[in-house]
Amino acid sequence: MTVRAHQVLTSVDAVAGYITYIDLVRDLIRDKEIIATSMKKEVDRVEKAVATALQGKSCAVVSSGDAGVYAMAGLVFEMCSRKEITLNRPGQNRENSGLTLEVVPGVPALCSAGALLGAPLTHDFAAVSLSDLLTPWEKIEKRIEAAAEADFVIALYNPKSRKRDWQLARARDILLKYRDPDTPAGIVINAMRPDETVLVTTLGGLHEHNVNMLTTVFIGNSATYTYQDFMITPRGYSEKYSLGKTGAG
Amino acid sequence: MTVRAHQVLTSVDAVAGYITYIDLVRDLIRDKEIIATSMKKEVDRVEKAVATALQGKSCAVVSSGDAGVYAMAGLVFEMCSRKEITLNRPGQNRENSGLTLEVVPGVPALCSAGALLGAPLTHDFAAVSLSDLLTPWEKIEKRIEAAAEADFVIALYNPKSRKRDWQLARARDILLKYRDPDTPAGIVINAMRPDETVLVTTLGGLHEHNVNMLTTVFIGNSATYTYQDFMITPRGYSEKYSLGKTGAG
Repeated sequence: MTVRAHQVLTSVDAVAGYITYIDLVRDLIRDKEIIATSMKKEVDRVEKAVATALQGKSCAVVSSGDAGVYAMAGLVFEMCSRKEITLNRPGQNRENSGLTLEVVPGVPALCSAGALLGAPLTHDFAAVSLSDLLTPWEKIEKRIEAAAEADFVIALYNPKSRKRDWQLARARDILLKYRDPDTPAGIVINAMRPDETVLVTTLGGLHEHNVNMLTTVFIGNSATYTYQDFMITPRGYSEKYSLGKTGAG
Repeated sequence: MTVRAHQVLTSVDAVAGYITYIDLVRDLIRDKEIIATSMKKEVDRVEKAVATALQGKSCAVVSSGDAGVYAMAGLVFEMCSRKEITLNRPGQNRENSGLTLEVVPGVPALCSAGALLGAPLTHDFAAVSLSDLLTPWEKIEKRIEAAAEADFVIALYNPKSRKRDWQLARARDILLKYRDPDTPAGIVINAMRPDETVLVTTLGGLHEHNVNMLTTVFIGNSATYTYQDFMITPRGYSEKYSLGKTGAG
């Protein structure tokens, strides 16, 4: 958590969030009004948070990771724009009306999980969610194909849920058209939370491991390598810099 | 900054980093050994940091944003692997030898700049650096092309420097083959630092604005829209959820 997120959570009147995330910050918000709803009730939750803010109370909407990456910031803006609410940035107030909205950035799963794997993201990367709940599968498949062909490091979000069990295997098959089965791959479950699991494997061996909704899967680019149990993507392709024992070059 | 980064910086013996980033945390590290080097001396800096750690001192290498995203974590791992140093994770120590290495994740520019623009990243996105210092330009161009065609939101890092002044215009031309000139675009300079500049424009109008090395440029996907001066990417394409005044659906 960032210092700013901590400040905001302890200073607001109300906190809205998925119950699991509320529980993670429960100690900080004991005296607050809590708007907790179950999963898949995001629209409901944001509706209540916006109504609370319109009553003049300050309300934080919590997400895990970064609020902007596959998370709640987008939905808050979508709702405010559909309701035609005037939005102010902090410190700016148009005619004393509307809502003041601050997005507090955070550490996305991509970075917290990446840190546990070593340094998989040092070069260009693409983030793709395998959830086809709100996005047609053909569009997702096209993105995996494009990212694979252009040699992006790839971070796969939402690789599996109880109802979606074939998407990761399909993604792997697409990736294998462009990348070697030995390409390093990483699996991180529950990054920086209890029951954290960190595993470095290969693209070809990806199907041998369990993943779930709280997993981020990383596929290296053509230059990614493993060292001990770390996944490392070098900064570039050209050998314009030299490292190592000899110091030559 | 995260709470963990603050803890680490105040507890280590030495801090290595680019002088500008050292200055940003100078207040926290007054009593530390400082390994500050100028820009483009990263290899030198990491060499010194690793040597310091091998002497038994704890040493932090600072980056702006997230250490894993176009930053120093990769170089530290590259150097340790070339020197065949045994690496331990925190709390794990193989035969009491080698180095213990912890990557402290942070808020990447992608997220801090994204937060200032609104919610540009809510859907699949690709990060591409326009610096061709260590990567052949053809490879960069191929990635922009692939990301554009597959409708990723795109974050462009290092859009311009004193010596690289044509890359952003070329990227824009490629993007215009696949996206409408009216596609929302965002420019953020010095996110969350003094002299912060936040600007929402269009892909077609991108060339009318100044950018520099401390800039992140965002290009929306086909569903991204602007509301007031915010850039918003909706969560999906299907209208499987309803928002707004009527509550119908």
